[in-house]
Amino acid sequence: MNNKNQKMVSEITSMETDFAQWYTDVVKKAELVDYSGVKGCMIIRPYGYAIWENIQKDLDARFKKLGHENVYLPLFIPESLLQKEKDHVKGFAPECAWVTFGGQNELAERLCVRPTSETLFCDHFKNIIHSYRDLPKLYNQWVNVVRWEKTTRPFLRTSEFLWQEGHTMHETEEQAREETQKMLEVYRDFYADTLAIYAITGKKTEKEKFAGAEETYTIEPMMHNGIALQGGTSHYFGDGFAKAFDITYTDRENKIRYPHQTSWGLSTRVIGAIIMSHGDDNGLILPPKVAPIQTVIIPVAQHKEGVLEKANELKERLSRKFRVKLDDSDNSAGWKYSEYEMKGVPLRLEIGPKDIENNSCVLVSRLTRQKQFVSLDNVEDEVEKALRQIHDQLYERSKRNLEAKMFEAKTFEEFCDVAANNPGYIRAFWCGEAECEEKLKDATGGVKSRCIPFDAPAPKDNDVCVCCKKKAKHLVVWGRQY
Amino acid sequence: MNNKNQKMVSEITSMETDFAQWYTDVVKKAELVDYSGVKGCMIIRPYGYAIWENIQKDLDARFKKLGHENVYLPLFIPESLLQKEKDHVKGFAPECAWVTFGGQNELAERLCVRPTSETLFCDHFKNIIHSYRDLPKLYNQWVNVVRWEKTTRPFLRTSEFLWQEGHTMHETEEQAREETQKMLEVYRDFYADTLAIYAITGKKTEKEKFAGAEETYTIEPMMHNGIALQGGTSHYFGDGFAKAFDITYTDRENKIRYPHQTSWGLSTRVIGAIIMSHGDDNGLILPPKVAPIQTVIIPVAQHKEGVLEKANELKERLSRKFRVKLDDSDNSAGWKYSEYEMKGVPLRLEIGPKDIENNSCVLVSRLTRQKQFVSLDNVEDEVEKALRQIHDQLYERSKRNLEAKMFEAKTFEEFCDVAANNPGYIRAFWCGEAECEEKLKDATGGVKSRCIPFDAPAPKDNDVCVCCKKKAKHLVVWGRQY
Repeated sequence: MNNKNQKMVSEITSMETDFAQWYTDVVKKAELVDYSGVKGCMIIRPYGYAIWENIQKDLDARFKKLGHENVYLPLFIPESLLQKEKDHVKGFAPECAWVTFGGQNELAERLCVRPTSETLFCDHFKNIIHSYRDLPKLYNQWVNVVRWEKTTRPFLRTSEFLWQEGHTMHETEEQAREETQKMLEVYRDFYADTLAIYAITGKKTEKEKFAGAEETYTIEPMMHNGIALQGGTSHYFGDGFAKAFDITYTDRENKIRYPHQTSWGLSTRVIGAIIMSHGDDNGLILPPKVAPIQTVIIPVAQHKEGVLEKANELKERLSRKFRVKLDDSDNSAGWKYSEYEMKGVPLRLEIGPKDIENNSCVLVSRLTRQKQFVSLDNVEDEVEKALRQIHDQLYERSKRNLEAKMFEAKTFEEFCDVAANNPGYIRAFWCGEAECEEKLKDATGGVKSRCIPFDAPAPKDNDVCVCCKKKAKHLVVWGRQY
Repeated sequence: MNNKNQKMVSEITSMETDFAQWYTDVVKKAELVDYSGVKGCMIIRPYGYAIWENIQKDLDARFKKLGHENVYLPLFIPESLLQKEKDHVKGFAPECAWVTFGGQNELAERLCVRPTSETLFCDHFKNIIHSYRDLPKLYNQWVNVVRWEKTTRPFLRTSEFLWQEGHTMHETEEQAREETQKMLEVYRDFYADTLAIYAITGKKTEKEKFAGAEETYTIEPMMHNGIALQGGTSHYFGDGFAKAFDITYTDRENKIRYPHQTSWGLSTRVIGAIIMSHGDDNGLILPPKVAPIQTVIIPVAQHKEGVLEKANELKERLSRKFRVKLDDSDNSAGWKYSEYEMKGVPLRLEIGPKDIENNSCVLVSRLTRQKQFVSLDNVEDEVEKALRQIHDQLYERSKRNLEAKMFEAKTFEEFCDVAANNPGYIRAFWCGEAECEEKLKDATGGVKSRCIPFDAPAPKDNDVCVCCKKKAKHLVVWGRQY
């Protein structure tokens, strides 16, 4: 019996008491991360990294299916290159880490550790795009990036993080716009079908869009406590960067034109979204499709004859279709239950002498804790069904959470009242002015526009801005964010 | 017809004329890399990156099968952390890139962009290793690293490169030594079974070992031109870092002990080894197991009825088992042949009206250029057999190349004579003194000890050092290197 570990499992703050502390407890106790000696940089431990690997595998297949190719561009951006697009450098320069020495020698030009790679891709595109035959270019890369952050939290905000960044170039504005929306839809599908997370999607306001973009689209899942997490973004750049970098191509009519550009990214933050969407007071609950262990097999009374043998046989059988772990350590069954609950393993399979006698085993859902006895004859099907059910239940719960915490506000007072008393999102009309966004943020201590949802109704003639009461231009969803 | 591309295929220097230029031509014309605006950093293009992805997938499965887990440690190493192990910092500090500013603020302590991560792993191991129950720790990570290089060449020597670095901790010296050798053997297997490259393996001399290691083992494939490439290394550290970082564990007898450590790495250099082991004057030749396209289908007289239909049907069938591309562009067949030869696609499948009439197609080996007519009925088996054959032939050729260029030298004069006139490796006895290594290197303009091969015979009583004529301690293989 491992006393250190037993103690570990019990020490977790409840969500109600202190959500932030609950989060910190979970990432640490489920062994997702460790803190490093480098301020703001985290160590992703095997269990956390295995989740990221499953996420990568799933998303990468989606990208490749749509014709995207993976590449690798350098870690460093020369300062002069970063400065080529003015809005972009304004947005990113304040959070760059700068390399100034190579070996013993001071560099003639500072190098920025990439915070994002639009400028590098443009520099490369300039070399390889000449004719419409070279378009579209549909590139992606899986890399680390650095943004110097003052306050950091594992996964949610770290000075270094891992992500994928897609960068594409197209002949026409129409094609680039289509790509921008298509890739956001890939993210939405991925959140729903793979992570079991429901989210709203839409367009960012001018104020909240990416530095250098014409338009930014976003997916905004709501965490269990009503706070938003920007879960992935997709940007339409028009030909702004192309002009700044002088990237041109000869079109089908033999005219010289600027190509149209997009980029889109999703990062290790998504693991934060999984934790805060699905977790509970017993720890993580992982969506089956990315769980490193989908089913843990716990032998009951494992010293009795035949139990371990049967458990191993089950492991063998189930491993052909699922990610399975058999825990035959000498920790108590109770300890094991807590341990794998903390780690969010979606399904537990118990098997003991009585079960074997009945040619059955017990399946226990991490989510509902419901037990069911199932026959060993078709245990593969039963496990599959149970995992699918857990996925569906997680998704429904995530949807219910967002819907239950979606409020409306017609007036400034209502808006402030909801913001003060009801954690969640607020639907409210807006005039289109950044000034009103600023005012609402200040009045509420941080509520910002999340997006103009794709499914938002157009304002009617008598709809007015929740802030200034001028004629409304858009329905906006507002909320606090991580 | 694409004139730009047609020109491209023809412009390649022959290996005999200028091997270095041939290499540069190939990496560029096969579209493996592009040069970036950042000195010494390369852009890995889709075709090059796809090779790396296949390498990663293969090696990663080998590591995981042996119980290794992937993790992610930070990009940055605080200067004080790097300095904890004295030999290590001495070796790496001269080639570090240093971050000195975060945003607008000068950092209190400089951060090194990781050149390798022993120090970070030790800092983490200190937190997570307490008891023998926590051992072994078998970790690996796939990351980018930076070593500031003066002269750079794509894949072979770049300031930033991609690699995997394994880092493990063990209870005993014996277990750590076993891991060190086991992982070198994984590399040897991988070179032979996956890359079709024969290589010698052995132990580095004191002078050539890794900074901070007690022992370094290496795999040293020989390039087509007789020059060595250090293809992967595995290090045994003893408890040196553990002591420097104060990592201890409680052993089975309840005593406090230092764990024993290893690390091992293989980088994108391996792509350079593939190019220079297998390529020829027509471009790349890729080993089938990592080739992004294993078989390219070229329809002949594709405008004729039924040809494209049949070609598509074949693509459909073969794609179930192989990585296949059908090129139905309107480039000429001749242009296509050159293009896919340049790109090293191991097998070409031609299908035209006559073939269809005979229910057959033509398979052409990239290596031997031999054509064979095979029945469409069992084309999958024929393709599989042909790919296996190409792999075997590549391996045999690589072995013959190394064996034909393996020379012996008994005296200093012989050694210098061989070094001057016969590109390749030299087997020669050595006394064990670094002074002699230095002297041989100076006398030959760069021939260094590659390793003491595992299969080297022990020196007999009358065997003497090729340099100083004192009693020999080891048989060493010597050679120039990339």
